[in-house]
Amino acid sequence: MQTILAQFKINPGKEAEAEEAMKKMAASVEASEAGALIYIFHRDRRDAAQITVFEVYADDAAFAAHTATEHTGQFRSYFGTLFDPASVKIDRLERIAGFSR
Amino acid sequence: MQTILAQFKINPGKEAEAEEAMKKMAASVEASEAGALIYIFHRDRRDAAQITVFEVYADDAAFAAHTATEHTGQFRSYFGTLFDPASVKIDRLERIAGFSR
Repeated sequence: MQTILAQFKINPGKEAEAEEAMKKMAASVEASEAGALIYIFHRDRRDAAQITVFEVYADDAAFAAHTATEHTGQFRSYFGTLFDPASVKIDRLERIAGFSR
Repeated sequence: MQTILAQFKINPGKEAEAEEAMKKMAASVEASEAGALIYIFHRDRRDAAQITVFEVYADDAAFAAHTATEHTGQFRSYFGTLFDPASVKIDRLERIAGFSR
């Protein structure tokens, strides 16, 4: 299992376009990546420009496949225009205990 | 829906006890809180003392019920002994798009 916590900021004035891009990305991951088990974009309730993505992949291969998709390449291209590349923080996490249902 | 991202650190030398406490807590949430949809403890792959909990509740009532349980009270009592209270960071998140399956 591979768990990723990605955090970044929306550029000022790009909120609507950014939301559209995130919705499209989530739909693409859901439709085409069977190994993506959880993939959720969030905004912080105290700072709507602060985005958190929680991602769980079945295994290393599923995560590698995710990074190689066309939609991931497309989403990455928005860093600069819609999202602030300097704000990106990515943590790789290891599950200790818990569940999703 | 209520989504919580909680982050905190394990006190030095308390790793084994902390892991036991987290496993017990996750099992209690899973067994007794039908409104807890996702509840996962993680360690950071680069810093094993850094804990991240990703929590999704069906609604405000499910989250309120979680905070009132005996196991949550018990887990909170470990801040000081097993976990560093000064390290706690809790973010309330709002889902924009995504899925779990």
